[in-house]
Amino acid sequence: MVDVIPSFDDVRQAARRIAPYVHRTPIFTSRSLDELTGATLYFKAENLQKVGAFKARGACNAVFALSEAEAARGVATHSSGNHAQAVAYAAGLRHIPATVVMPESAPPVKVAAVRDYGAEIVWAGSRPLDRERKLEAVLAETGAHFIHPSNDPHVIAGQGTAALELVTEIPDLAIVMAPVGGGGLLAGTALAAVGRAPAARVIGAEPAAVDDAARSLQEGRIHPPTGAPTVADGLCTFLGDVNFPIIQENVSDIVTVGEEAIVEAMRLIWERMKLLIEPSSAAPVAALFEHPDLGRGQRVGIIISGGNVDVTHLPWG
Amino acid sequence: MVDVIPSFDDVRQAARRIAPYVHRTPIFTSRSLDELTGATLYFKAENLQKVGAFKARGACNAVFALSEAEAARGVATHSSGNHAQAVAYAAGLRHIPATVVMPESAPPVKVAAVRDYGAEIVWAGSRPLDRERKLEAVLAETGAHFIHPSNDPHVIAGQGTAALELVTEIPDLAIVMAPVGGGGLLAGTALAAVGRAPAARVIGAEPAAVDDAARSLQEGRIHPPTGAPTVADGLCTFLGDVNFPIIQENVSDIVTVGEEAIVEAMRLIWERMKLLIEPSSAAPVAALFEHPDLGRGQRVGIIISGGNVDVTHLPWG
Repeated sequence: MVDVIPSFDDVRQAARRIAPYVHRTPIFTSRSLDELTGATLYFKAENLQKVGAFKARGACNAVFALSEAEAARGVATHSSGNHAQAVAYAAGLRHIPATVVMPESAPPVKVAAVRDYGAEIVWAGSRPLDRERKLEAVLAETGAHFIHPSNDPHVIAGQGTAALELVTEIPDLAIVMAPVGGGGLLAGTALAAVGRAPAARVIGAEPAAVDDAARSLQEGRIHPPTGAPTVADGLCTFLGDVNFPIIQENVSDIVTVGEEAIVEAMRLIWERMKLLIEPSSAAPVAALFEHPDLGRGQRVGIIISGGNVDVTHLPWG
Repeated sequence: MVDVIPSFDDVRQAARRIAPYVHRTPIFTSRSLDELTGATLYFKAENLQKVGAFKARGACNAVFALSEAEAARGVATHSSGNHAQAVAYAAGLRHIPATVVMPESAPPVKVAAVRDYGAEIVWAGSRPLDRERKLEAVLAETGAHFIHPSNDPHVIAGQGTAALELVTEIPDLAIVMAPVGGGGLLAGTALAAVGRAPAARVIGAEPAAVDDAARSLQEGRIHPPTGAPTVADGLCTFLGDVNFPIIQENVSDIVTVGEEAIVEAMRLIWERMKLLIEPSSAAPVAALFEHPDLGRGQRVGIIISGGNVDVTHLPWG
């Protein structure tokens, strides 16, 4: 266990540890999105990752970093989304028990995916307090190791391996962008970029409706999410005391974007690149549309975070 | 100009000729689709190809095979779909004029794409006779070279380069599958597979609603399309006298599939693989669902033909 803030070395170690269990995802370019943004874009397609999102990286790193004794007691987490599937997937690979606290409102397809990977589901209400109480009960009963979705050192280091692959394969990026929700991906991305491509600026993107990360970075203290609705529902979570210092030290800016720009960027990536991405993943491209000076003339790497979306309910109606 | 039936050598020559102008598309696997079909599947993702479909390969091969004198008079074709964009794209690369005869009913997004590549559009009614008369008038007026969508030797050889990459990268395939509409892709695929992977069986897939290719192969003569509606509207076209002999000699079987199976396969590829594919591209996977003995226990290569679909009108409503 790392009990301190993770470093670039932890990202490199994570890359070695998880290599057998995750895809080295492809990096795509798009002439038409380059024309629309004025930038030269490189898309790291984590929607093609195991479980359909970068979350497989952090969960595998956390699960495979456990000692035999720790692993034997299993792992637990709370999540209604991609992290739930990722922990279930990683625990299944190591043949250890996993318990996931999920809200009763979780989409049935995600519930089914978690079950298919062999995890046990414990239901909770949808308020944070409900799920935390349930999780505490699970931990007390089982002695399982808690894998936080975004504020765990191994999770952060694991998420950083996507950017490590990106900046290793594509040199001389001026900017590396990632969406920011709980902050695990952005912090890991920043560690990787600063360690391997120190000239690159790291920029986060989040919906203006839930601009807590942008305000947190500006004001130097963690703000809670606004609770406002956003199409990018994966981004409505708290920064944490492990990832926030990394973000403060290594991230140049967090840019906010409107809902329409997110939907427009998502649709363009679907139509022009033929890649299914979830709304959260569109936030960086939306930022380049809304802030055209940001990327113009630059080589920009973008982490496409995931592709888990209900194809029967699309935001363009 | 090749005036004879193309051969494996023509596919190899096409691969060298078009390499600067097309993507070497990635090949994907999917544990979940393997489980659902009982096969080990390798997906050649031509939806990620230039213009969003394999058609870029054949059009580039036809355009760049022209002599300087031929090229100077330009090229022309008729198509409401991917071939129209492909010819416009290829002609733009060679800086020669292109004229595309399109039905007035063509989707506006495809019309805009053809224009964006710099081609001239000539409108025609939607009946085959209408467009042929218009095309003849264009050819008579301009002296342009006609690039048939599926029955041109260079087009067939170019389309075969997708399968050539597939069977070169993934050895020991037992089966190589492609959808069949006009027959250019299936014929090219067969030439490549027989030349580079002679142990592989080549199998086409088409909607049962338009089973003209299957009946043509069974009965040894070209049947016209039934004209029935199908969700895989890209597959409602005639086989031709150049591609049919290749199919007769090198294709083991053409399997027909129901509309529901096509939509189900398309949706699964979207959801599980995060790849946008058009309905026609789903026909081979639909065939593996409807004919479970076909692929079970086998290594199967599949050409995912394209990803040009209206994301606001999806077949699952």
